[in-house]
Amino acid sequence: MPTLRRNPITGRWVINPDAKSGRTSSLLEMEKLIGEGICPFCEGNEKYTPPEIFALRGGESEKDGPGWEVRVVPNVSPALNVEPELDRRAERMYDLMNAVGAHEVIIETPQHVANLADLDASQIKKVIDTYKTRILDLKKDQRFRSVFIFKNYGERAGSSPIKHAHSQLIAVSVTPKNLKEELMGAKKYYDYKERCVYCDMIKQELSAKRRIICSNTDFLAVTPFASRFTHEVWILPRKHSADFESMRDAKSQNLASLLKEVLLRLKILLDDPPYNFILHSGPNRTKRRGEAWKTLSEDYHWHIEIMPRYTRIDGFEWGTGLYINATTPEEAAGSLRGVKI
Amino acid sequence: MPTLRRNPITGRWVINPDAKSGRTSSLLEMEKLIGEGICPFCEGNEKYTPPEIFALRGGESEKDGPGWEVRVVPNVSPALNVEPELDRRAERMYDLMNAVGAHEVIIETPQHVANLADLDASQIKKVIDTYKTRILDLKKDQRFRSVFIFKNYGERAGSSPIKHAHSQLIAVSVTPKNLKEELMGAKKYYDYKERCVYCDMIKQELSAKRRIICSNTDFLAVTPFASRFTHEVWILPRKHSADFESMRDAKSQNLASLLKEVLLRLKILLDDPPYNFILHSGPNRTKRRGEAWKTLSEDYHWHIEIMPRYTRIDGFEWGTGLYINATTPEEAAGSLRGVKI
Repeated sequence: MPTLRRNPITGRWVINPDAKSGRTSSLLEMEKLIGEGICPFCEGNEKYTPPEIFALRGGESEKDGPGWEVRVVPNVSPALNVEPELDRRAERMYDLMNAVGAHEVIIETPQHVANLADLDASQIKKVIDTYKTRILDLKKDQRFRSVFIFKNYGERAGSSPIKHAHSQLIAVSVTPKNLKEELMGAKKYYDYKERCVYCDMIKQELSAKRRIICSNTDFLAVTPFASRFTHEVWILPRKHSADFESMRDAKSQNLASLLKEVLLRLKILLDDPPYNFILHSGPNRTKRRGEAWKTLSEDYHWHIEIMPRYTRIDGFEWGTGLYINATTPEEAAGSLRGVKI
Repeated sequence: MPTLRRNPITGRWVINPDAKSGRTSSLLEMEKLIGEGICPFCEGNEKYTPPEIFALRGGESEKDGPGWEVRVVPNVSPALNVEPELDRRAERMYDLMNAVGAHEVIIETPQHVANLADLDASQIKKVIDTYKTRILDLKKDQRFRSVFIFKNYGERAGSSPIKHAHSQLIAVSVTPKNLKEELMGAKKYYDYKERCVYCDMIKQELSAKRRIICSNTDFLAVTPFASRFTHEVWILPRKHSADFESMRDAKSQNLASLLKEVLLRLKILLDDPPYNFILHSGPNRTKRRGEAWKTLSEDYHWHIEIMPRYTRIDGFEWGTGLYINATTPEEAAGSLRGVKI
């Protein structure tokens, strides 16, 4: 049984997938397919993936057959499983629970294209719509405290051997450390100022201009003031909103075109760099969580963080959490703005 | 001027070294030397490094000449500089300060050996003594809130092109996120239980035995209950102590032999893996910091964290701080115990 274990000092959770779950053998099978020149994510090869969870499809097409636009399947080597019991328990001074959750793969296009940056904005819009659908569905399950969408592009960013453009979704029964830090930090700021820290940041960036890469009526792309990585980019909705999945359709279109523009600028400037992106949206709220989450819709602000990964993280950064970034965000924004697209 | 910038949401600091400080050109010079087959860290090549800050030397030998056992020099491309003014300031809602600090390199042996694991325990003892000397010296400067010793071994762990065994030291004017989390977590536990969380952990590990790799009268090496990395190892002093640098001489000898044993077991089991290690010692305490640090010598417990780095960290782990570790610490401890040395 996969477990979630808690560090008794810092409260950080770690997932231990079940070594006996066949995680490795399924991965090896995928690698074998790739070696034979078969891409399991291409249209027509649906039989090589587990049965689909969801797909955007044309009217006539059938489940697990061709004719889809975006397709969602379970991860063949999931870090978590959808199990019936959370079973929070103690092992003397330690805390653990079953690693209940979902681990899905969003195949972003039926064609064999590697980088999301190379898809049309209209296709990226469909990917965003799929993210929304899956998050809304999973948040119905109150065991799942948070749902993340993320992407590993390129080997250095931890991508799988499958090059075909895809992102992943993980739903977990805990609030992971980094999200908790953001939630708590944003709440502290709100308690003190009665304003959202992200909204204040957006206002300041709009007036300072130096760290803005591009924007449209609904979204802003900036290099954050304390960027951890060279050319790190955040995309934020201009109007306050805690939850990505509550975004209306017209906004999704604007997000798609801004996301495409940012990824394209990064691709051209940095010569197709490996990158990660991660969507930070508000956690799944239930009444019993009470006071702490009460103001959350006012004090948290969803956003996407994009991190090019062409520098290695060394022991100092790992061990301390203090990052060293050789390029100032002002320089980075300047060069990203300067890219001809 | 290099700066430290604070993320206004999470409070995380980031170092922006000065791009114009010649950081890159000095690194390129070092790479050129290596290309010509000259190791700047070998005995006899002292002229290729900046003047030494400290060295353990035989009586007759001269500064910046041969005859040393362990040698400390400034990092040629420092992330921080020893500047006169901290100058904490605001840029509207953002906080920043000059990146005042020290960045040093500890050359662990005059011979051209790459892995600390391959040095004699008596030589490792000299390295540990040097760590102590440097930390004690730097903590005299009250601007430096914390001093870290760390090591990047192997390319994946972020090592420099210089293979010759060396570790690094960074002293900074802030308490980095990860250390602060530990300090706060340990304090919370202490406030509640009036016991040190690390001491409790050591007792539980000694009685459970499953996660112990090896030990001696003064130190214990365990795979922590919530290991983030496969075969992550922590070395802790059995007797409570907040500060590494207050360790007595007899203990240093025992630490040297346990550290050697652990590194050797990792080397044999994992076929000379890349790894990071980092020393977490209590921060520099001054009176004016008051209440929060008062109990610190009772609630914090110094330790060394060793992290083999043969798996890549993907976007999910980066973005959430929730790690996925395929090997349980019990399995890892079992295989490390089983290594014949």
